[in-house]
Amino acid sequence: MALIVQKFGGSSVADVERVMNVAAIVTDTYRKGNDVVVVVSAQGDTTDDLIEKAAEINPKASKREMDMLLSAGEQMSIALLAMAIEKLGCPVVSLLGWQAGMTTDSAYSKARIKKIDTSRIIAELDRHNIVVVAGFQGLNKYDDITTLGRGGSDTSAVAIAAAMHADRCQIFTDVEGVFTADPRKIPDAIKLKEITYDEMLELATLGAQVLNNRSVEMAKKYNVELEVLSSLTKVPGTVVKEVTKMEKMLIRGVTKDTDVARIAVTNIPNTPGIAFKLFAKLAQKKINVGIILQSVGRDGTKDITFTVSKDNAEAAMEAVGNIFSIEESNIACDTNVAKVSVVGAGMESHPGTASRMFEALYEQNINIEMIATSEIKISVLIDAADADKAVEAVHKAFFEERK
Amino acid sequence: MALIVQKFGGSSVADVERVMNVAAIVTDTYRKGNDVVVVVSAQGDTTDDLIEKAAEINPKASKREMDMLLSAGEQMSIALLAMAIEKLGCPVVSLLGWQAGMTTDSAYSKARIKKIDTSRIIAELDRHNIVVVAGFQGLNKYDDITTLGRGGSDTSAVAIAAAMHADRCQIFTDVEGVFTADPRKIPDAIKLKEITYDEMLELATLGAQVLNNRSVEMAKKYNVELEVLSSLTKVPGTVVKEVTKMEKMLIRGVTKDTDVARIAVTNIPNTPGIAFKLFAKLAQKKINVGIILQSVGRDGTKDITFTVSKDNAEAAMEAVGNIFSIEESNIACDTNVAKVSVVGAGMESHPGTASRMFEALYEQNINIEMIATSEIKISVLIDAADADKAVEAVHKAFFEERK
Repeated sequence: MALIVQKFGGSSVADVERVMNVAAIVTDTYRKGNDVVVVVSAQGDTTDDLIEKAAEINPKASKREMDMLLSAGEQMSIALLAMAIEKLGCPVVSLLGWQAGMTTDSAYSKARIKKIDTSRIIAELDRHNIVVVAGFQGLNKYDDITTLGRGGSDTSAVAIAAAMHADRCQIFTDVEGVFTADPRKIPDAIKLKEITYDEMLELATLGAQVLNNRSVEMAKKYNVELEVLSSLTKVPGTVVKEVTKMEKMLIRGVTKDTDVARIAVTNIPNTPGIAFKLFAKLAQKKINVGIILQSVGRDGTKDITFTVSKDNAEAAMEAVGNIFSIEESNIACDTNVAKVSVVGAGMESHPGTASRMFEALYEQNINIEMIATSEIKISVLIDAADADKAVEAVHKAFFEERK
Repeated sequence: MALIVQKFGGSSVADVERVMNVAAIVTDTYRKGNDVVVVVSAQGDTTDDLIEKAAEINPKASKREMDMLLSAGEQMSIALLAMAIEKLGCPVVSLLGWQAGMTTDSAYSKARIKKIDTSRIIAELDRHNIVVVAGFQGLNKYDDITTLGRGGSDTSAVAIAAAMHADRCQIFTDVEGVFTADPRKIPDAIKLKEITYDEMLELATLGAQVLNNRSVEMAKKYNVELEVLSSLTKVPGTVVKEVTKMEKMLIRGVTKDTDVARIAVTNIPNTPGIAFKLFAKLAQKKINVGIILQSVGRDGTKDITFTVSKDNAEAAMEAVGNIFSIEESNIACDTNVAKVSVVGAGMESHPGTASRMFEALYEQNINIEMIATSEIKISVLIDAADADKAVEAVHKAFFEERK
């Protein structure tokens, strides 16, 4: 007998049939003798519909009232799921975020969990109830409802699993697990049995939208064993855990991110503090920067090239223009780029990873515009038109022998 | 400066336009220097839609989970109304039932308010906020959400007005007030300026569906001055308060109730306790009885005739059949009947009221099947086909001279 936390996203409970399907998964787990805590998001498009409704009334509504509004979405889904579980004959109780003891700070719409008082959950498990908890929501010190922001239900689930010392936290999605590449595009993509937290973090950041990043960070911090799996097929998913004896794989996956703009600033006077001023300004405007490259240009001037997401490109260009008294022709923005990356803790001890990746690209005649590396990741910036071809080639180079 | 509680029903906030209209009424009242507490129901058909959704998943869902589900309806409407008030530039905060300190017993789906801890409402008013409270809902001693049942938002409003010693509790509806008869049917119907609690209670019971009965009882108990008025027209409504110096009117209104079934039991052996057994059985089956008449029949046997609502008729017939070992031919049920009543505290001191009513019916050749009276009410049971004609004739008899 184990304590299992199961999290189901909005699409998993979008309609009556899917709610019943989730109830079947939950009651199956319960009937095998496990204690089960279920964390659930709002049904399907509920949250988007509510946001739209609010915008019609007041596009500048306060975040406190938005949180009051949106948290109703999960309230409805926990009640409906509890009813479905009742129908399948298991004892169940639904709990709102605050009833489950979820305390957050007061940053409405993107609150952070501060503490979980698990006494109510424990009491309900002691009564042999399945406990269905509303994800995405908590209560601040003023007794007001907060939401954790998009993807917050993952965080709720991991936080509860951590606080309850659960044996496993299962994140059910509409994919079967974490793949070595996007299986819709690369038919040879392999589902990973296991992956480390750090690898998962790099993959999540790089556009493999399976798990919310904050939840993986939290899982790593509290050593919560995660499993990503599908609510529609009954096959094991991918387990995310601390590295121990994992199957030997050089890399875990190849990802593509097309939401990238490259900004190149050339001919910057070579005075101290230039990079500091630039990136401080960007940080102040809350613009996240991806890859940064600095090189020495002509006549001892500097060139700085960096990437931002596409919707930040204009603001970043403006910030750069405000700082440097240089000609406009020296600031260039290119949005026709894509970032292709390989991720894997195994590459640390394999110096050949980068060269194998670059060789694969070279064979396809793909030009590399920028390169950035970390201990477990190699990213290259290439022409957006080459992105899919690049992923295919790189994936083949690393995984062909496994097939 | 006064403290005003304003309650708006679901149809008053059914769409964006109506929400904005309610926000205008509320902010008008606030800008005149009043403290304002607003109690609001779920939007339009939200509650019915949620009930339908639940029925699809589990028609036998527990009442606890139903209350969890339904209370989300008011949560959405308070947030949206607060956003609309923000848009009109007034400070506002929305509160759920439990945040507003509403404690109830644990009778899910029909909970009764036990206590209101007004500290949060007071604190928000001290901060000069308009306070928007979710009607219909509260919290029981297990920290679980309860609902007060249909019409519960009226009760929430009156309870808050009582606990806060509000100067007035305004119940906004889609009618302009309480009329002497249904204005859609009787063009001569007059809007009452004032009415006593008891008169309002009789009218509510008799089918004038303006105010929820429990809320009127509570208003009477705590001496809360009510006003029934329209959210669509800006005219004074009807004030419901303890009798003082009211305008002189013999009766306050004429009502019709067609949801009546008459059950006649004849030839009952004349033994003691017969009536007790019969009505104890009906009470046990939670069947409400309206008019009761008992008379001596042939050969010293008894006849008992009583009325119930139509959907209870079958169960009542069965209960009667189980008690008496009498022939079936002696139990008769007639659903083609209607109850027409006149209500007014003034009739107590005017013995001619009954005869004036009966005369009006006689002139229209309408046969009276049963008569029941209280201090402030006279009801007659007549053929359903005559009901509208009867209301018109009786209304004319009492109100013609006022036109």
